[in-house]
Amino acid sequence: MSTGPAVVLLSGGMDSAVALAEARAQGHRCHALSVRYGQRHSSELDAAARVAKALGAHEHRVVDVDLRAIGGSALTDDIAVPQSPGTGIPATYVPARNTVLLALALGYAEVLGAHDIYVGVNAVDYSGYPDCRPEFVQAFEALARLATRAGVEGARLQVHTPLIQLTKADIVRRGLALGLDYGLTHSCYDPDARGRPCGRCDSCALRAKGFAEAGAVDPIVLR
Amino acid sequence: MSTGPAVVLLSGGMDSAVALAEARAQGHRCHALSVRYGQRHSSELDAAARVAKALGAHEHRVVDVDLRAIGGSALTDDIAVPQSPGTGIPATYVPARNTVLLALALGYAEVLGAHDIYVGVNAVDYSGYPDCRPEFVQAFEALARLATRAGVEGARLQVHTPLIQLTKADIVRRGLALGLDYGLTHSCYDPDARGRPCGRCDSCALRAKGFAEAGAVDPIVLR
Repeated sequence: MSTGPAVVLLSGGMDSAVALAEARAQGHRCHALSVRYGQRHSSELDAAARVAKALGAHEHRVVDVDLRAIGGSALTDDIAVPQSPGTGIPATYVPARNTVLLALALGYAEVLGAHDIYVGVNAVDYSGYPDCRPEFVQAFEALARLATRAGVEGARLQVHTPLIQLTKADIVRRGLALGLDYGLTHSCYDPDARGRPCGRCDSCALRAKGFAEAGAVDPIVLR
Repeated sequence: MSTGPAVVLLSGGMDSAVALAEARAQGHRCHALSVRYGQRHSSELDAAARVAKALGAHEHRVVDVDLRAIGGSALTDDIAVPQSPGTGIPATYVPARNTVLLALALGYAEVLGAHDIYVGVNAVDYSGYPDCRPEFVQAFEALARLATRAGVEGARLQVHTPLIQLTKADIVRRGLALGLDYGLTHSCYDPDARGRPCGRCDSCALRAKGFAEAGAVDPIVLR
């Protein structure tokens, strides 16, 4: 079964790895796209390369975008990473990040002649992020159909968000059902020099909660 | 008069320089944003810096985005630049370029707390580019209001396109009326090592036609 080429945004985290596994399960030839946007560590991109290879992506490209030039987030600035979940929009929010990531995915899709983009956004556990909501994704899809040569020629570009309404536990289960090795993925905002997760940041806490609620064991090794 | 901060996308070409002059004329504190997206020469960015300074921009930032990693255009690949106007969408089209540029402008606007973005897109002389059309800009505006913290909190982000329905001659006249020195701008796709325009590429031809139709003299020096 082949359903044509698809661009899959791959961060190296759990969610995008499950999105890639879903795209592959749909029969797409998967073109993984990672973005180096000025993160303070390379562990995520190393994980993305491992996941792309393990899940049989046709290729894996990395685009550099230096979001530090416009500032505004603890993930790219020298602001301390918050150690516990807060309320509202987190300090680790990167301004317009998903808009930038999807724009790059759209450009890559256009080059490939792909009409499908997969992105592992999630509206349940990331409800504080405006650009993880279904209405944002729908608006991007509307934009994509007007923005591109393919759209002008009548192609119906689709942005697939297979995880958008899943809890973290659901995501863990879905990845396991698709055969994903979570030991390849990386979630921590604040890893040590060898890339091992801290076990304390928001992202580590959310991951641990997801595995616990799914009744599964996370194969990743903490420092 | 002050109408708050505005982000102005500034390429170094004529159109975005006029857009900056318009934003300033509206009383905005202007934050110019240029994007180094893998162009083969730096003449455009040098021009952007000159224009930002001459037009009194509050600051001028440059974001690097390596669009060469996803390929697909004569402006960023090793494909020859076409020497004469063709039909349909030109080979110099950069996939999803305006979507990427506006996404970065949106991120910068969010960091600044700005609700206004100015972009010098033009639907008259660039009718072959899908992402220069009014319907594209409107779709981006709709996306922007859903994508950001400010939008969630009720701010009405606006994408201003003061040039969108002007001919190149109208643009030349408008810039002159606003006191713009066109000698600071750069339009050529294929300049020599000293940055002087070729006078033959599509962009040089369109610029010459605009000045001729406006009955004005272009102060720029050809090689």
